[in-house]
Amino acid sequence: MSTPTNSTHPAYASLSQRARECSLLDSSNALLDWDMQTYLPKSGSAHRAEQSAYLASWSHRLWTNSEVGDWISRCEQAGLAEGQSSEAVNLRLWRKSHQRATRLPAELVERFKRESSLGHEIWVEARQHSDFSRFQPSLTRLVELNREMAERWGYEGSPYNALLEAYEPEARSEDIRQLFESLAPAITQLLQETLSAGLKKTSLPPGPYPVEKQKTFNHRIAQALGFDFQAGRIDQTAHPFCTTLGPSDVRLTTRYDENDFTSSLYGIIHETGHGLYEQGLPSEHFGTPCGEAVSLGIHESQSRLWENQVCRRPEFWRHWFEEACHCFPQLRQSSPEALARHVNHVQRSHIRVEADEVTYDLHVILRFLLELDLFEGRLDVADLPAAWNELFEKMLGLPVPDDARGCLQDVHWSMGSFGYFATYTLGSLNAAQLHAQAHSELPSLASHLAAGNYQPLLDWLREKIHRQGRRLAPQQLMMQATGRATQSEAYLSHLRDKIHWLKGN
Amino acid sequence: MSTPTNSTHPAYASLSQRARECSLLDSSNALLDWDMQTYLPKSGSAHRAEQSAYLASWSHRLWTNSEVGDWISRCEQAGLAEGQSSEAVNLRLWRKSHQRATRLPAELVERFKRESSLGHEIWVEARQHSDFSRFQPSLTRLVELNREMAERWGYEGSPYNALLEAYEPEARSEDIRQLFESLAPAITQLLQETLSAGLKKTSLPPGPYPVEKQKTFNHRIAQALGFDFQAGRIDQTAHPFCTTLGPSDVRLTTRYDENDFTSSLYGIIHETGHGLYEQGLPSEHFGTPCGEAVSLGIHESQSRLWENQVCRRPEFWRHWFEEACHCFPQLRQSSPEALARHVNHVQRSHIRVEADEVTYDLHVILRFLLELDLFEGRLDVADLPAAWNELFEKMLGLPVPDDARGCLQDVHWSMGSFGYFATYTLGSLNAAQLHAQAHSELPSLASHLAAGNYQPLLDWLREKIHRQGRRLAPQQLMMQATGRATQSEAYLSHLRDKIHWLKGN
Repeated sequence: MSTPTNSTHPAYASLSQRARECSLLDSSNALLDWDMQTYLPKSGSAHRAEQSAYLASWSHRLWTNSEVGDWISRCEQAGLAEGQSSEAVNLRLWRKSHQRATRLPAELVERFKRESSLGHEIWVEARQHSDFSRFQPSLTRLVELNREMAERWGYEGSPYNALLEAYEPEARSEDIRQLFESLAPAITQLLQETLSAGLKKTSLPPGPYPVEKQKTFNHRIAQALGFDFQAGRIDQTAHPFCTTLGPSDVRLTTRYDENDFTSSLYGIIHETGHGLYEQGLPSEHFGTPCGEAVSLGIHESQSRLWENQVCRRPEFWRHWFEEACHCFPQLRQSSPEALARHVNHVQRSHIRVEADEVTYDLHVILRFLLELDLFEGRLDVADLPAAWNELFEKMLGLPVPDDARGCLQDVHWSMGSFGYFATYTLGSLNAAQLHAQAHSELPSLASHLAAGNYQPLLDWLREKIHRQGRRLAPQQLMMQATGRATQSEAYLSHLRDKIHWLKGN
Repeated sequence: MSTPTNSTHPAYASLSQRARECSLLDSSNALLDWDMQTYLPKSGSAHRAEQSAYLASWSHRLWTNSEVGDWISRCEQAGLAEGQSSEAVNLRLWRKSHQRATRLPAELVERFKRESSLGHEIWVEARQHSDFSRFQPSLTRLVELNREMAERWGYEGSPYNALLEAYEPEARSEDIRQLFESLAPAITQLLQETLSAGLKKTSLPPGPYPVEKQKTFNHRIAQALGFDFQAGRIDQTAHPFCTTLGPSDVRLTTRYDENDFTSSLYGIIHETGHGLYEQGLPSEHFGTPCGEAVSLGIHESQSRLWENQVCRRPEFWRHWFEEACHCFPQLRQSSPEALARHVNHVQRSHIRVEADEVTYDLHVILRFLLELDLFEGRLDVADLPAAWNELFEKMLGLPVPDDARGCLQDVHWSMGSFGYFATYTLGSLNAAQLHAQAHSELPSLASHLAAGNYQPLLDWLREKIHRQGRRLAPQQLMMQATGRATQSEAYLSHLRDKIHWLKGN
């Protein structure tokens, strides 16, 4: 009797079929969500919520069914989970995701869903009134539910590690804390240095910058960076995002400000970075771990790399200035240098999503430290605003005027999401480290980028990151791609160079 | 022990829950389809087809499960299917749809799906090359499959009745044939009369009619007719359609011709008619027969009523001329009368979807008669082109130059859809009959319509048609609303009036 090959083992075939079904449901649900944020008529939202909940619960039921665990066990017993084959990688990650999903009783999942959608509603109102006390009971319950989920999922060290796992597999809060605690003072010092130079913000020539022209220019840039519009598109939403609806269907969104075209442009460049990663994943593995992005920290590295490492440089504007003037004739009153300064202006501010590149990570580190305090028992939810305001003033040097511009500003906690924020700064660090590595491996890369030829960089990222799917854990992937785990050196060096240039060399 | 009320009978509750699940799946699938026709990137179509097939097959499996039949039986045994309550109406129609769905073995459904999607592909090519012989083998199999399905569904009289049932419940081919065979010569006579008057087509002032302005004007008109944009929207597609994605989410589409704004406008008015019906269905019954449209022949009456009975009249253009000139200043060279003549021009032509109101039904009747011949054994598929060409020349007075402009022009047969065409002309007849009835019940309706006040007519349709859902069969509904089953009198009288006006006076 011949031994069946991996791909024909009946238990593996059943698993593949089940994963396929879940991915058809999940990607349909992603369309329901995309449409909700782009085109859904106002009165359609109640039915949409029901559709979405139904598809999600069915996908969850299919994946948590005990037969899935049995199939995985049978494959493990047949030795299929050993080694580096796609089947082995998928089996190991399926085992993890199945375990994680089945460790939560349905009742807890339901309770969490209810609390988080309720919490979101209450948060919207609390933020409107800038009144933390309204949100406090919800937030308390959401923190408790997360603690309960962490206990059930299990963890080593901090319970916060169990939450991180959802966004950054195998990350440990201790390592991130260490990384961030050395990063913060270095950034603060750079910030002081920049602010003391007293640079004024370069303003753009007055608008309007017509939305249709912005769309044309953004499309041109996204295409130049390598985004495939046969397998993707751009639409308009209140908050920019990138979502994948299928192996050849990646959708980006942005918002438009008629007074400043760079707002939608950098929104699109950022999302294009995410989109290039998604378009570069191996589509033959779509719907299995081998075809998925490895973590949010790596995902964010792809968006920040294109946004900050590539497209905020003066070279970018030197190359695109003529074409920008063609879309927006008033830019002839400006210069490539002035545009580059405009999009790199450094200033202290209260709102994370409006922060410049230098101050941005201070906002993130603050949130990470507070989350850690909450989950490691050093901070009560009731004391969050005071802790936020104190730490904010210490780190950013600005008093916090109210909760709306303080601990109520972000949507994440309102949806019960803890452990997410850290990935933004991991993304900044990974971006700089990958970018530096690409330059060291490709000596002519700088001149390619200056000439608007982004293909060599994209090819490098395709090979080192995109095509890898989830074959390696995030830090193994960074090791393989750059020879080191995530560090802050390359990033600080990038910031230093930029500040040097800003200060007028 | 108290008897549970209808709504709490456990079997009825299970049925409602199951119907709800199917409607969540089906409406999600409708979004997948809408997106495919509006925004899906080119390379996304393969995955989209899989998503769609998966949701459809799951919904089908849920509904054809034997427990559904058991629940219906238990409700019937409890007497819940008697009378006029919503529960009784739903149960009787659920019984029908469950029976119809379960009478086809899964293997036959699969075979039909494969043949029809293959047939569609082959048809696209055959039409491009205007070569019926390429499509003939597919069409032969599709006709045979339909015959097999008809046998399994069961029928009285003609097997064609089993096919009609899918689109026009309880319709009988014998009745429709009788109706159409008296209608055709009457229309032909009116057509001769019009053509012999030698009226020239009134051309529009030269374009361009900018697409953005067309959108503005179309939106204005759809809103004036009563379409609720809080619960619906308009997008752009190759072929206009209306689809319902939820109880408060109705989507219309149209296409734009920069040389003639009336093409997109009448597309939108037609789809608005469909949309008003969908928005007027009782949303509390969404997902059950009481909340569904009764038939395609009634649906089409709603689109044709607004399109032809209301908005092609000279009064319509007298009222909207100023606003149209505001959007399209070149119309000042024209007049309300000239616009009305432009959109009512009568001429013989080969393509159904481009036909004017007078000739349109001749195109439809021809297709109906040929379908009847095919399914009642008087015509072989191989002889279809010859039969088409002969009948076309007899009815329309034009020779057919090639198959692309003959029997290959429509998409319906390529997808294995037989029995659909008749509902277009039933729609014309129903529209005229309902419109005449509304005028006879509402003496001031004409002056309201002339003043652009469409609410009284919409209110009447809401009460007589929309709010009824599927409580009555189509012909019962026509009896209740107009005192008569569908007849051709009102329609012929409408055409006569129009031709009288066109000929000068």
